[in-house]
Amino acid sequence: MRTVWEILVMIFLGICLKKIGATKPAYYSSYSDLTHCYCLSWRLGVESNNVRAWRTVPTQCLRYVQFYMLGGQYESDLELIVEQIYSYIDEILLTNTTDTRAWILDVDDTCISNLLYYTGKRFGCDPFDPMGFKTWAIRGECPAIPAVLRLFRKLIQTGFKVFLLTGRDEETLGQPTIQNLHSQGFVGYERLILRTRDYKGKSAVSFKSAMRKQLVEQGYTIWGSVGDQWSDLVGDCLGERTFKLPNPMYFVP
Amino acid sequence: MRTVWEILVMIFLGICLKKIGATKPAYYSSYSDLTHCYCLSWRLGVESNNVRAWRTVPTQCLRYVQFYMLGGQYESDLELIVEQIYSYIDEILLTNTTDTRAWILDVDDTCISNLLYYTGKRFGCDPFDPMGFKTWAIRGECPAIPAVLRLFRKLIQTGFKVFLLTGRDEETLGQPTIQNLHSQGFVGYERLILRTRDYKGKSAVSFKSAMRKQLVEQGYTIWGSVGDQWSDLVGDCLGERTFKLPNPMYFVP
Repeated sequence: MRTVWEILVMIFLGICLKKIGATKPAYYSSYSDLTHCYCLSWRLGVESNNVRAWRTVPTQCLRYVQFYMLGGQYESDLELIVEQIYSYIDEILLTNTTDTRAWILDVDDTCISNLLYYTGKRFGCDPFDPMGFKTWAIRGECPAIPAVLRLFRKLIQTGFKVFLLTGRDEETLGQPTIQNLHSQGFVGYERLILRTRDYKGKSAVSFKSAMRKQLVEQGYTIWGSVGDQWSDLVGDCLGERTFKLPNPMYFVP
Repeated sequence: MRTVWEILVMIFLGICLKKIGATKPAYYSSYSDLTHCYCLSWRLGVESNNVRAWRTVPTQCLRYVQFYMLGGQYESDLELIVEQIYSYIDEILLTNTTDTRAWILDVDDTCISNLLYYTGKRFGCDPFDPMGFKTWAIRGECPAIPAVLRLFRKLIQTGFKVFLLTGRDEETLGQPTIQNLHSQGFVGYERLILRTRDYKGKSAVSFKSAMRKQLVEQGYTIWGSVGDQWSDLVGDCLGERTFKLPNPMYFVP
């Protein structure tokens, strides 16, 4: 009997909450609750690695992703994750004193941001444009992601060897990437590892796994891997923990 | 009964606040945008496995989690994930004809819901209460999660051997769990695997890994693992893909 009561109350409460509350922000005047609800589910699906191999942001989520990236939630998400990483680093420092502590950071939309570029690509609603992206990357004007720059500095200050590991092509994008990182304050890292000819056409997972394996073979202990793509965070030699930064604009297989 | 009373009072207060002219929805009346933003980041952190080993929902997120669970977003998230699983199953069926296809489902808050119980525990803001939960589980009144029940039926109809794998104690909760699952429509699974004495005190990851390993050794090919906890989805023999169902109310290490 009690359970029936509880179910009735829950249904009633559910209806009331639906009627009186809405989590949708004011920008949503032209968007239905259903669309907002769907797009939030979709973004969660992307971030929890349930939604994979997607090519473009669903068109109905253009405004949602735009507001997510520009309205403050993206920064809030980044800040919370970086706080978690800080706690983890503090734990490591308390228990570990080896001098071969390594940490892996991805580059695009981890250290430096392509948001400006994707603003012109309808926040990922347009399909990936390899030439367009190359032209943008060669300009070397990606701004630092502030929360990650702070993390980068903390890692270096606390004695980690930081490896920047990116699927960017070494031959064509090596120099602009080095300059871009330097101009944005990423100074003092151990090595920038770009994609060499041998790995052209290989998946990000296999390329990055091979690179991390080399580091482990060289004697480094990888404590953490940070990236905006799940392909940065699955595979071999990931280290003790991985951290997924948000990116609802594109998917790298 | 006290809980029901509290909920009714909360609803009444919510309606009153709305009626007396609060411009923000009642859900927000005592919550700032910043709190909403933080709690959404926190929930995303939990779902993407960035926030780990948390003991309780942050107190400031009580209303947020309550609204998330009861206001429709939880169901929306579940639906989207189950849709993804359906697409994946369709792919498997196209390419694979083995008759030892296996699938793993967790039980609590995967097949059947503890939401009613957690309503009385301030949606996870109260610390875990082992005796309280046991008393609840023995009643065997957890309702099915509709999206997962549909998935369960589809898996069985398409020839998968479905294994229900749960950390619930076999000795004390075996019978009520079997009855609960049966009464909620979970009929036709291959095996319900509960925690035996040998695994008392072991982590969910090591217990579940060992059980999956046994299945693989028995010749099953695990195609998917579905659970509401990351401890269901890391470890050994997970199969080709894993799917994380939402649960912002508790964390199982």
